[in-house]
Amino acid sequence: MGKLEETIKKVGPIDEKLMGETQRRLDNLTKPKGSLGRLEELAKKVVGITGENNPSLKNKVIFTMAGDHGVVVEGVSAFPQEVTPQMVCNFIRGGAGINVLALHIGAKVVVIDIGVASELKIKNEKLKIKKISYGTKNMAKGPAMTREEAIKSIEAGIEVFEEEYKKGIDILGLGDMGIGNTTPSSAITAVITGRPVEEVTGRGTGINDGIFENKIKVMKRAIKLNRPNPKDPVDILAKVGGFEIGGLAGSFLAAAAHKIPVVTDGFIVTVGALIAFELEPKVKDYIFASHSSVEVGHQAILERMGLQPLLDLDMRLGEGTGACLGISLIEAGVKILTQMATFESAEVSKNLDEK
Amino acid sequence: MGKLEETIKKVGPIDEKLMGETQRRLDNLTKPKGSLGRLEELAKKVVGITGENNPSLKNKVIFTMAGDHGVVVEGVSAFPQEVTPQMVCNFIRGGAGINVLALHIGAKVVVIDIGVASELKIKNEKLKIKKISYGTKNMAKGPAMTREEAIKSIEAGIEVFEEEYKKGIDILGLGDMGIGNTTPSSAITAVITGRPVEEVTGRGTGINDGIFENKIKVMKRAIKLNRPNPKDPVDILAKVGGFEIGGLAGSFLAAAAHKIPVVTDGFIVTVGALIAFELEPKVKDYIFASHSSVEVGHQAILERMGLQPLLDLDMRLGEGTGACLGISLIEAGVKILTQMATFESAEVSKNLDEK
Repeated sequence: MGKLEETIKKVGPIDEKLMGETQRRLDNLTKPKGSLGRLEELAKKVVGITGENNPSLKNKVIFTMAGDHGVVVEGVSAFPQEVTPQMVCNFIRGGAGINVLALHIGAKVVVIDIGVASELKIKNEKLKIKKISYGTKNMAKGPAMTREEAIKSIEAGIEVFEEEYKKGIDILGLGDMGIGNTTPSSAITAVITGRPVEEVTGRGTGINDGIFENKIKVMKRAIKLNRPNPKDPVDILAKVGGFEIGGLAGSFLAAAAHKIPVVTDGFIVTVGALIAFELEPKVKDYIFASHSSVEVGHQAILERMGLQPLLDLDMRLGEGTGACLGISLIEAGVKILTQMATFESAEVSKNLDEK
Repeated sequence: MGKLEETIKKVGPIDEKLMGETQRRLDNLTKPKGSLGRLEELAKKVVGITGENNPSLKNKVIFTMAGDHGVVVEGVSAFPQEVTPQMVCNFIRGGAGINVLALHIGAKVVVIDIGVASELKIKNEKLKIKKISYGTKNMAKGPAMTREEAIKSIEAGIEVFEEEYKKGIDILGLGDMGIGNTTPSSAITAVITGRPVEEVTGRGTGINDGIFENKIKVMKRAIKLNRPNPKDPVDILAKVGGFEIGGLAGSFLAAAAHKIPVVTDGFIVTVGALIAFELEPKVKDYIFASHSSVEVGHQAILERMGLQPLLDLDMRLGEGTGACLGISLIEAGVKILTQMATFESAEVSKNLDEK
């Protein structure tokens, strides 16, 4: 049995009984019942996932997975492909959005080259090289990758998780970098949800009308040519996907297998979650949706998985920036559960209805 | 000229020119233009308020203002009045929701007794005594307070701000505590917005149908009896308001007068903002709306002031808990502006459209 099957098999149910007990504990804290709304729900879910009564989210880790896309030769992006390795260097030097927001919430950033089209000249302990290939192939001309590469990319995401898990992960946020990667993301979304490509395609980093029309045409051509099987997530990933999307799917699966809460970012990361979910639906119970992206396809996949995002701030950067903000809210919820006084300990009178 | 008039006079316009320059700086950071959405808007607004190119929000302070309400004898709340001083003690000892969330974001909590109905037995540097009276009078039988008391309560909020401002405030979050205080809040909202009482009244800490019907009747009686003048915010505060609501209005005005960003919490605090706004509309430009409360009246006043909340997490606790979560997002926005690399400094290629 390969690493992928093994990991899928390890994903078990979350502890619903403990979540019920946690609600009773929350109801006895010095506040009106339910008055902290979704913060209470977040605390309960972390307890259900970890199986710990008083979880601590001390070790917060962000994986930012970078890969390139052969389909950029079709002119689907506003930025040139060289930006992928340039941004990887920016992540390592600490100048990107993800660095600022990770520092803000006290998280560590791990950058993974899972398929950047060029050789990265930078060496740094923050950078992991798990390159499957130098970018995917152009999906408008044939499959983006082989089935073997698709499985390897998912397993690379599992490996990254297992390596970092040994150093300590209490909560994981996922992020992406890859010029052109909203194109495979929209293609995967269209195939899995059965919605027309037009309904699940947005403007990515900010393309103009001409590029937008072309992007839709390219995706339609790629899907028609490659005929991905909607029931086979690995086939979809191979034919119209990307290496970072496979890696993200692997990290979602591995986090769930290890009972670690895992937080989405925007559209691309959530497509990674969707691939994981199609492989093993139970993975959904381990996932928190951090925010609602401006990208139109995002809502479609959140709905399919039944996840409700925490934030809606018109963000569309990726990298894990939304995941950081979500993690801070989840940590706030957990602290409410573990640090607030009870009515008894604080000597506060209860609701008159309960006397 | 009294302290209130003086403070109102000091509220000037924010720096729109500097905000324009800030947008150009944001557009040159290593991210697609506008891709951090409302985080960018938050950074820009803080710059406009403070007049500083690179503001720092190091000193985060929460004021939690506590007062009691004579109207509770009419049976409008689910909790007994003794809970107000009990919760003040809980705030001082650090066991309440506000303590946990303030610690989470690195904020200091200042608790103010501006009208608790009993003598607080606790002495602590965290607690300020600015008592106007031992609770308001029952607004269903006559005015909640005199016009002089209304002005004194607003000026107490100004004083608290000025005392704490000397110790350092870079951003202020406001919070409330007072059993029964959704009743004056809904009454004020109905009078100022002209909406029927039923449309702006919620379940507060969680009242049953019987108490809810009664709460509406009591408010209608109070408004009919006292006839507050919708054009005179001080008259409204005196007749159907509360001391903590006046104090909150004063702190909003003082923050604006000192060019300090100030963050709402839920319904009661936003009613304080509304009183300040009716006294001086420019105050709105200094206010950030942290979250959308479950209380139905909240949306009506946010709309009146033209403020869009940052979060919607089904919260309705008060105390400043929502303000804390909002402050963390505002700080994230400011850090994006002040800590991210530019395209030039990081040697990252720009959007092809701009080449």
